[in-house]
Amino acid sequence: MNNILQIAGLAKEASVSALHLTTEIKNRLLTDIYNALKENKERILNANLKDVKNAERLLNEGKITLSLYKRLILDENKFRDMVQGVNDVSLLEDPVNKVMWSKDIAEGITLKKITCPIGVLGIIFEARPDVISQIISLSIKTSNAVILKGGSEAEETNKIIFNIIKNILDSYSDIPSDMINLIHSREDVKELLSLDKYINLIIPRGSNSLVKYIKENTKIPVLGHSDGICHIYIDEFADESKALKICIDAKCQYPSACNSVETVLVHKSLKDTFLNKLKTEFIKNDVKVNENLEDWSIEYGDKTVSLKIAENIDEAIMHINKYGSGHTDCIITENDENAEKFMLLVDSAGVYKNISTRFADGFRYGFGAEVGISTNKIHARGPVGLEGLTIYKYRLYGNGDIVNDFVTGKRHFYK
Amino acid sequence: MNNILQIAGLAKEASVSALHLTTEIKNRLLTDIYNALKENKERILNANLKDVKNAERLLNEGKITLSLYKRLILDENKFRDMVQGVNDVSLLEDPVNKVMWSKDIAEGITLKKITCPIGVLGIIFEARPDVISQIISLSIKTSNAVILKGGSEAEETNKIIFNIIKNILDSYSDIPSDMINLIHSREDVKELLSLDKYINLIIPRGSNSLVKYIKENTKIPVLGHSDGICHIYIDEFADESKALKICIDAKCQYPSACNSVETVLVHKSLKDTFLNKLKTEFIKNDVKVNENLEDWSIEYGDKTVSLKIAENIDEAIMHINKYGSGHTDCIITENDENAEKFMLLVDSAGVYKNISTRFADGFRYGFGAEVGISTNKIHARGPVGLEGLTIYKYRLYGNGDIVNDFVTGKRHFYK
Repeated sequence: MNNILQIAGLAKEASVSALHLTTEIKNRLLTDIYNALKENKERILNANLKDVKNAERLLNEGKITLSLYKRLILDENKFRDMVQGVNDVSLLEDPVNKVMWSKDIAEGITLKKITCPIGVLGIIFEARPDVISQIISLSIKTSNAVILKGGSEAEETNKIIFNIIKNILDSYSDIPSDMINLIHSREDVKELLSLDKYINLIIPRGSNSLVKYIKENTKIPVLGHSDGICHIYIDEFADESKALKICIDAKCQYPSACNSVETVLVHKSLKDTFLNKLKTEFIKNDVKVNENLEDWSIEYGDKTVSLKIAENIDEAIMHINKYGSGHTDCIITENDENAEKFMLLVDSAGVYKNISTRFADGFRYGFGAEVGISTNKIHARGPVGLEGLTIYKYRLYGNGDIVNDFVTGKRHFYK
Repeated sequence: MNNILQIAGLAKEASVSALHLTTEIKNRLLTDIYNALKENKERILNANLKDVKNAERLLNEGKITLSLYKRLILDENKFRDMVQGVNDVSLLEDPVNKVMWSKDIAEGITLKKITCPIGVLGIIFEARPDVISQIISLSIKTSNAVILKGGSEAEETNKIIFNIIKNILDSYSDIPSDMINLIHSREDVKELLSLDKYINLIIPRGSNSLVKYIKENTKIPVLGHSDGICHIYIDEFADESKALKICIDAKCQYPSACNSVETVLVHKSLKDTFLNKLKTEFIKNDVKVNENLEDWSIEYGDKTVSLKIAENIDEAIMHINKYGSGHTDCIITENDENAEKFMLLVDSAGVYKNISTRFADGFRYGFGAEVGISTNKIHARGPVGLEGLTIYKYRLYGNGDIVNDFVTGKRHFYK
């Protein structure tokens, strides 16, 4: 029997057993994982050193990018945040088996809408070895089974973190062992993407090209985003100092983040005044300014920004809806009517007024955890918290009730 | 320029303009459509007669099924329900621009989660000409643009209903004309399914084979279900009279419905007692009983039922999760513990206790309208009401706020 198929089949079985898990046992497991990771800090950082050394060679040979190399490194700070993340998830409210609502639809018939796990998650990620404990924590908390595929560049780190967690999980006799799984080879990914009978949701965490490849090659729903082409539109009624401050923060605070700004649109009335100040400010902050582009769908991911004059707010909105990626877009204005118009008509997960696009983040939104940021138009959009890993089922309680009594008019539904 | 591509592009533009629509104008439009359909009853029924005559010929030539032929017929009763449906939708609460929640995430920064339309819907349906006014009403109420493709067998009826509605819509200068679209040829469907840049959600309404074809041939999310293999498990603690009544209702009340039962599982302790009564009752109601099958994933859609002995509740649950379609499954029992176990572990959109599977329906659930029944594990599951055609966006209101102030510890998010 094929290995991945077997893993997926067992994960699906585990996902049913996982429905039994209580909040208390899930939280105890998360606390044990938190402690085990802390206790094994040296081993984990040593394993990461091996990966980093290997990556150094690949970097020198030009086989990986500097940004991937950087994301691979697990230093003391990242390790602390990673471990703390597991603890944070244990403190969150359990998102499954929550009664969303309950109502009597007829005499003696009660309908309940109740949250439940999605089933089996497939997570495909690159570099960042801190993703593995984060995603496993989120899966446990939501009672989902998970199949993880990490990048080969982080194999040593991923393996040791996974094994530490798996050992803890296996010490619990009432938690299904196949609930968490790690696979390795690139060929496995292709097969994983074909198993729509077993896997209910794919979440890619990594480069645009990884996400694009996955979206092109699976029938399984994918939660995530590839491009993050965010805009700031400086309205004619903008407060200049707010505009400058926000543009610099949105571009420079972390240029490679998906929620950093790529294109700034400036109302034409500001052409000979504010525009020059903005350019000066960008240049002062080492930002390269591109104007008169052919293609406005560029995600730089570094300190480069596209600048364009907009005839009016309508042109700005049209530009954003045409070239944007539906991620996060902002208007700078003191005019409430324009702000509301922008926020109504820009078709993006996040529409902002007078605030940096860099706020698009599950933690900043107060979700306590972030599964990722989605530019999908169904299920979950924008920063996704735990509830993005849940769905619901309807429970209907009767007492021998039949539809025929209602069709014949003997009984009636409540209005 | 290609016709379908052009239609899809214009529909996408219309979907942005549609964001302006107020509840009041949408309801006025729906009322006008309701009146126009009523006024044009004769024309619509005459057009339907043409389709029915043509279908009669196809039926005699064996080119279409009897059930498709029957679904095509628009009689006085169906017409009345169809028109009433438009009025019902006008009376429902507007599901878009609703503030789901609003909170301050830091001093002076307010985050709002607000419902909004999905964008452009693609609806592919067969026979039933009453679908067209229903889907257009739901699209208008949710401010979505829609591209409809009806079956060729109902072309005359679809055309006239569509044109009546379109004429009304065009008389409103502030409603985008490209918000509703009807396409005709089979080749168009193939192209429609490829336009994932323009179309956000596909909803198929028709035979299993239609739904399967669509799911296999598009990257656009599909909302719906193909199979409806529903189960009833008669537990050892079942009340026999409830069990008999529910089994007959679930099989006979409307055998071709997707929520009618296909397989009845009976606890082995009832083998020599209740089982015989059940068989007798089925036979009395002209139901053919199949036992000892090789394949338990059969949807009969007529008065045939599969019957199986289950060793215990666990085997029954495993059987349902293996062979079912995740639609609706029921346990008959007076034992609450078994009922809760069944409802927790059966991974279906609807899990029922002591009530006929035929209750799985948006109207019976009190949703006021039904988009369809979904067996998806994301976005919307079970009978889907208006909210299945909506998603949300996050609006973030600030006053010049930058992330850097929070990263440097100058400012703090609320806990």
